Amino acid sequence: MDKQRIIIDMDDVLADANKKILENFNLANGMDLKKEFFADKSYYDFVHQYNYEPVRQKLFEPGFFRNLEVIEDAVEVVKELHEKHEVFIVSAAMEFPNSLIEKYDWLGEHFPFISWKNICLCGDKSIIKGDVMIDDHEKNLVSFEGKPLLFDAMHNQTLKGYQRVLSWKEVHQYFFS
Amino acid sequence: MDKQRIIIDMDDVLADANKKILENFNLANGMDLKKEFFADKSYYDFVHQYNYEPVRQKLFEPGFFRNLEVIEDAVEVVKELHEKHEVFIVSAAMEFPNSLIEKYDWLGEHFPFISWKNICLCGDKSIIKGDVMIDDHEKNLVSFEGKPLLFDAMHNQTLKGYQRVLSWKEVHQYFFS
Repeated sequence: MDKQRIIIDMDDVLADANKKILENFNLANGMDLKKEFFADKSYYDFVHQYNYEPVRQKLFEPGFFRNLEVIEDAVEVVKELHEKHEVFIVSAAMEFPNSLIEKYDWLGEHFPFISWKNICLCGDKSIIKGDVMIDDHEKNLVSFEGKPLLFDAMHNQTLKGYQRVLSWKEVHQYFFS
Repeated sequence: MDKQRIIIDMDDVLADANKKILENFNLANGMDLKKEFFADKSYYDFVHQYNYEPVRQKLFEPGFFRNLEVIEDAVEVVKELHEKHEVFIVSAAMEFPNSLIEKYDWLGEHFPFISWKNICLCGDKSIIKGDVMIDDHEKNLVSFEGKPLLFDAMHNQTLKGYQRVLSWKEVHQYFFS
C-alpha cells in the first residue's frame, strides 16, 4: 500500500469517552447499563428518553477529556501507522473550549510520538482532506473525499453504509494485511 | 460569484501579531524599526542577525495572542464574507498550546458571528480544503488546492508567485467587484 494520509479522530476512537459517558448516564438515572445493551438500538433515541442533560453538562467540565482512558491497542497501532504512513489526529473539539488544552495534553501523554504539526482541533471536519478517515460519527465521514472507516462505538451500532472496523486490531489488518 | 468556502488565517491576517512582534524586536535590540523598513528585504534573514530568541519566547507567554489588535477592516469584511459565502477561520496554533484557548476567546470577542463550528486550530494546513485560502505564509498556501491569496505582511514582502492582497479592502474587491 502506498503511503497514505490517515485522519484519526480522538473521542471513541483513541480516547474512551463513551465509557465515562455511560457511567455518567447510569449515575444520573440510577441504572446499570453496559455498552452491549445498545447493540441493536439507537443510542441517542434511547438516552434522550431519560435524564441526559447532566451527562451532556459533564462534557463541559474541566478534566473530562484529560482523564479518559486510551482505547485498547490504539497506541501500538497508531505508532505503526505513524511510522509507515502519515497520521493526523483531528478532533471536533471546538464545542468544548476546555477540551482544547486537555486534548493537546492527553495526546502528549499517551501519543508523544505525534508532533504538534499533526494535531488539528476543529469544529466541523468537512474542511479536512486526506486518504483515509477513521471516525465514529457519520457527520464526519459523510463529506470526506477519501476512504471512510467507521470505528465501532455504542452510539453507531445501527449505522449502515460504511466499512466498519471493530477494533484497532482490525484497523491494523486493513492497512497491513 | 458562486458561494465559496473561504479559509482565513488568524495571525497577521485577522490579528496584528506583527505589530507586537516588531515592538518586542525593537525592545530586545534597542532599535526603532517600522514595518516599512522591510519593504525591500527578507524579514527573517534580517532579524536573525540580531537578538531574536526573546522575541520568539514572547509567543509562548500567556496573553500574547489574547491581546492582539484586529487588523484594519477585518471585522466588517469577514462579516460580509460570512453572510454571503462560507467562512472558516483556520490557524496553525498548535505550536503554542497557550494560544488555543486565547485564540478561541479572541475570536469570540472580535468575531462573535463566527460559530465554533467554523474555527479550526491546527498544526499544518496541508490537510485543509476549501475554495479560497487567505494567508500570509507560503508554507500554508503552497499545498492548497483552491485559490491562494497572499495577505500582505512585513515578513512576506519578497515572496513572489501568489496573488497578493494588500488589505481587507482589497479582499472585499476580490469577492464583491
